[in-house]
Amino acid sequence: MKIKQLTIIGVGLIGGSFARAIRSAGMIEKIIGCGRNTQNLEKALALGVIDDFYLDIQSAVKQADLIFIATPVCSFQQILTEVKEAMKADAIITDAGSTKSSVIAAAKAVFTEVPENFIPGHPIAGTENSGVEASFAELYQDHRVILTPLENSNASALECVQELWEAAGAKVVTMTAQHHDLVLAATSHLPHLLAFSLVNTLTTLDEKQEIFENAAGGFRDFTRIASSDPVMWQDICLANRDALLEHLDHFSHDLQELRSALVKGDGEKLKAVFTRAKQSRDSFMNSGSNNDKK
Amino acid sequence: MKIKQLTIIGVGLIGGSFARAIRSAGMIEKIIGCGRNTQNLEKALALGVIDDFYLDIQSAVKQADLIFIATPVCSFQQILTEVKEAMKADAIITDAGSTKSSVIAAAKAVFTEVPENFIPGHPIAGTENSGVEASFAELYQDHRVILTPLENSNASALECVQELWEAAGAKVVTMTAQHHDLVLAATSHLPHLLAFSLVNTLTTLDEKQEIFENAAGGFRDFTRIASSDPVMWQDICLANRDALLEHLDHFSHDLQELRSALVKGDGEKLKAVFTRAKQSRDSFMNSGSNNDKK
Repeated sequence: MKIKQLTIIGVGLIGGSFARAIRSAGMIEKIIGCGRNTQNLEKALALGVIDDFYLDIQSAVKQADLIFIATPVCSFQQILTEVKEAMKADAIITDAGSTKSSVIAAAKAVFTEVPENFIPGHPIAGTENSGVEASFAELYQDHRVILTPLENSNASALECVQELWEAAGAKVVTMTAQHHDLVLAATSHLPHLLAFSLVNTLTTLDEKQEIFENAAGGFRDFTRIASSDPVMWQDICLANRDALLEHLDHFSHDLQELRSALVKGDGEKLKAVFTRAKQSRDSFMNSGSNNDKK
Repeated sequence: MKIKQLTIIGVGLIGGSFARAIRSAGMIEKIIGCGRNTQNLEKALALGVIDDFYLDIQSAVKQADLIFIATPVCSFQQILTEVKEAMKADAIITDAGSTKSSVIAAAKAVFTEVPENFIPGHPIAGTENSGVEASFAELYQDHRVILTPLENSNASALECVQELWEAAGAKVVTMTAQHHDLVLAATSHLPHLLAFSLVNTLTTLDEKQEIFENAAGGFRDFTRIASSDPVMWQDICLANRDALLEHLDHFSHDLQELRSALVKGDGEKLKAVFTRAKQSRDSFMNSGSNNDKK
């Protein structure tokens, strides 16, 4: 399969890496970049990640066979509004948004009915770095990509997007958008919220100075994700609010039970919870699942 | 400074590494091991970590100039009861317990008044492995050791313990036991509790299978400490219950505020918390503090 023109909206780590990957795989003739940061786009051009760029979405997408949206999910509705005005009728649209229900809602708001060629997607990959200079072709190698096609999604469009991700080295799985959002709320969004909250709480305490000085590797690992981009995570939390609240409430409930066990000095209960957690995690780690940071 | 005989009670990762480190530093003539696991002690002997061993504490400590207790904190009172019966009057006792107030309470219960030669300590170091085979001389290199001497602590005893840790490559700081327990509750004990609780909660959910399959590096790092030893952590949580509850309640309170912000869609509040956390963590990471996992 070969695509004539790919337009990437948001040529950062994610968009840039996708471009590099499928160009290396020889699946694309021409790559157009689009975004709001001229400096970044010029860099992308200089690096050969893209062949040309436009600041204006309509110009960028009018010849595109595939449109890849790799911007924060809160920007999708505004972007899709522009895309709709100029895209070719049979162009495929896909994305890399961290939440899927909100992306589909944005598509519905713009198109009334989600186009059959719109294949929502989410690559479970990333690093703490950003911008096109951080992008690299191997980012998705052995990583998982979740596609959340809708009932009306066109089978060829789905197949095309799947093939591209597989050419980038990823393993593609499909699920409903709702399921995706719940799963990601559990594995990614809630941990981020907890890490941010813990570090914020500790920052407030009198002992802050010594808290951090006396912290060790366990604290560093646990809080690593609290060094993530605040704006990106504000965006994700709001976009996936319902699923996140659901998991947060489960978590808070169980934490209160653990608190009660602590108050009562119920060592057996603590041990039971800790043992179950350890077994579960060890089993997960040994299963060889190899998704990287997101 | 040279010590004639060191007795290590609990020749595991921590005790074994201490033995190796100060032997490498040429500060010890003879090392006696003591514990309940004959196989581990024989291994320690075969590895040259110790020169001899006893299963019986009284025999092990009677000639000791320095007694190093590296067992779970819940066992201290029973151990100190035996130590008291046989130790030399001027022997120095120190330890590696993860909590300090409970250790001091155990010493008070056994000795009525905490001996002036008892210098409670806590090396902020460790790995996920255990047993004497996991021990190595460099474990404490560039790591922090917290000593919590009491008002009546003998200055020479304190100096001796400090010199030994420094010879092992550690940086020694002192603080009150209460302060130690609060700081460690914040940086270590609470994160462990949260990680155990989160993994336990997720294990209960219907989506468990896919939760773990779709987890990425962020989840792995956040939950790494949930692979810690459940018995050791039951012990630590119970021993440091008050400090842990204090921090847990702060955390839960702030998390509920974050929940409210989420419910209201208050993006600014979320961003403010996330930004503060990121700045705090980045600043801590850049300060070059180099304590390893505990």
